[in-house]
Amino acid sequence: MTDAPMTAQAASTATAGDILSHHLTAQAGAFLRALPLAVGEVGARPGAASVVPSAGTADLLRAVRRVGGLLHTFGSVFEQTWAQESRTELRWLLNLLALEPGYVRRSARLLGALDSLSGSDPEGTGMLAGHAGAPKARALLDRQLTLARTRAHSTVLQELRSARLHALADRMTLLVGEAPLLEPAGGRAPTVLLPQAAAAFAVLSATAQQLPLHRAATPYGGNGLRRLGAVPAARGTVDADTALAADDAPWARLRILVKRGRYALEVCGRPSSELDELDAVLARQQEAADAAVTAATAARTPRITPATAYVLGVVHADQRLEVESARYAFGRRWSDLQPGPDGWPEFPVEARGHSVAPRTV
Amino acid sequence: MTDAPMTAQAASTATAGDILSHHLTAQAGAFLRALPLAVGEVGARPGAASVVPSAGTADLLRAVRRVGGLLHTFGSVFEQTWAQESRTELRWLLNLLALEPGYVRRSARLLGALDSLSGSDPEGTGMLAGHAGAPKARALLDRQLTLARTRAHSTVLQELRSARLHALADRMTLLVGEAPLLEPAGGRAPTVLLPQAAAAFAVLSATAQQLPLHRAATPYGGNGLRRLGAVPAARGTVDADTALAADDAPWARLRILVKRGRYALEVCGRPSSELDELDAVLARQQEAADAAVTAATAARTPRITPATAYVLGVVHADQRLEVESARYAFGRRWSDLQPGPDGWPEFPVEARGHSVAPRTV
Repeated sequence: MTDAPMTAQAASTATAGDILSHHLTAQAGAFLRALPLAVGEVGARPGAASVVPSAGTADLLRAVRRVGGLLHTFGSVFEQTWAQESRTELRWLLNLLALEPGYVRRSARLLGALDSLSGSDPEGTGMLAGHAGAPKARALLDRQLTLARTRAHSTVLQELRSARLHALADRMTLLVGEAPLLEPAGGRAPTVLLPQAAAAFAVLSATAQQLPLHRAATPYGGNGLRRLGAVPAARGTVDADTALAADDAPWARLRILVKRGRYALEVCGRPSSELDELDAVLARQQEAADAAVTAATAARTPRITPATAYVLGVVHADQRLEVESARYAFGRRWSDLQPGPDGWPEFPVEARGHSVAPRTV
Repeated sequence: MTDAPMTAQAASTATAGDILSHHLTAQAGAFLRALPLAVGEVGARPGAASVVPSAGTADLLRAVRRVGGLLHTFGSVFEQTWAQESRTELRWLLNLLALEPGYVRRSARLLGALDSLSGSDPEGTGMLAGHAGAPKARALLDRQLTLARTRAHSTVLQELRSARLHALADRMTLLVGEAPLLEPAGGRAPTVLLPQAAAAFAVLSATAQQLPLHRAATPYGGNGLRRLGAVPAARGTVDADTALAADDAPWARLRILVKRGRYALEVCGRPSSELDELDAVLARQQEAADAAVTAATAARTPRITPATAYVLGVVHADQRLEVESARYAFGRRWSDLQPGPDGWPEFPVEARGHSVAPRTV
């Protein structure tokens, strides 16, 4: 992301196309700079080393998310087929790149939780301190996550040499300065962009309202462990995996919408630290939910000892408690930010009728 | 407890001995009325039936707790050896009588938790819904708790026919109208009783201040699962049982002090619904902590399946979460009630310098 601010004067006469081209050029440039770095990093990394996601990959993910978000939120000003295809390819790369760092984070989370639960630090002894199953469960989780990560690494290595990635890079090269805009892009930026950003926030609000946020904002309501959301249209027996997946899905969707909202506000020159925080809280929620699934899956490994299984049960519950805790944090923040049906207070109120002055593009 | 209020006028000239004798006569009378009922109930009850503690036993426990509390809090006005012996015998009966109802409540709590965690109610599916280990873990817990309860029942049956109980009943008979008071009992009630009640509250406040109440009042602080209190003076390896016992002990002590405070306020004619609520919250805290120990112990049963052990791990964590939730509730209420080092706001401030007018005795 370059730090070339447009002046307020320039922005006041800018068209929607100017603003969007400016953003897309910057992000496509970031994409093209980060891509060779990311490819080099993945290639240089031994499969099972315990590294944090490296700078090139992080920058690439950042650019991919923003370009995809803009093409979605302000979709009506772009050539439809092109925008749709671009989003599909960006989503493919996003899922691919996120795979390995995701396993690294999940491993750190689960092994950290186990160490904390079985730790005997005087300042915070865990309920599994000294338990015979703790080292066994730790080794099992470590082994399974390392294996998953190694597999992900091979997949990523292979795909990073694919024609599909080269085609996407070509697409990004064309985007620098030359986004295929439709006629409405010639309109004034606020007139064209604000309603589309507002629509993104309306979807976010509507989705949030479907969630039991009031319940989540009351601590210890049992949302994570005992009172999972209803499984839609499921007849017959409901198993825990189905129930947990159905419970987590709307929160995962909410996170996507919060991210789109963040990127839309960046385009409108009003990046919001509150949205950044909500995004971080939802990331914690999702990582804990995913880690809980990993613990439950590990507990189904054949021939483990009862002590190992017992420890994995505690870890599973602990991660569901983390889910509940993150939802509580979200529910509290959201109720402060979301006063009514008028939408996001930060954005349309201040920006409507004024020039849109992007602070950073 | 009789409902014979002393008039404010009578109370204003009452001595400390008048007030205490009045209370002890009422409670000893309640003891003597409830005792044969309780004995009959225990004898009539089949060992393993799933009944709630019956009225006679509940009344007897109520009287035993109050007499014991008064003899402790206002100990300086009673003949020392007599008061000490009486408290020892009352504590023996209290522990004996509380045993069986305790197992009944623990069974209801643990099986209820398991049913909630493994339930597939559309309004609240649990994280163990449909899990193969859930019915096995339920049967195991039910079997172990029924056995413990049957053993407790036999012990109670035997002790209720003992010479020790008859001696205690004789002691209570003598207490009706004839508490062995020392000379200070002749002083005016407020002058003698208020400093002793205030001392009880000072101990309560000091004990509460030793607890991490500030941390407990922040939700999801990990107090129940990950950050148990320090194990005092323990060198070498700390196991979870020791850590959990050390973590729970000060909270159990706090509950005793809250109860003493309640009974002291009753003597002073100012029963406090806030203290009643704190007592109830601490009862929940303690029952969850005890239930967690039972789940952990059941998980050590030889030859259980990993699925059973896994479910017991989740139940254990769930009950520790209940512990954390109850401590949170206590921490919130306590900070509202406990404004500073001046002690309990309800009691010495309003009562000091005025007559003590018991509302019920």
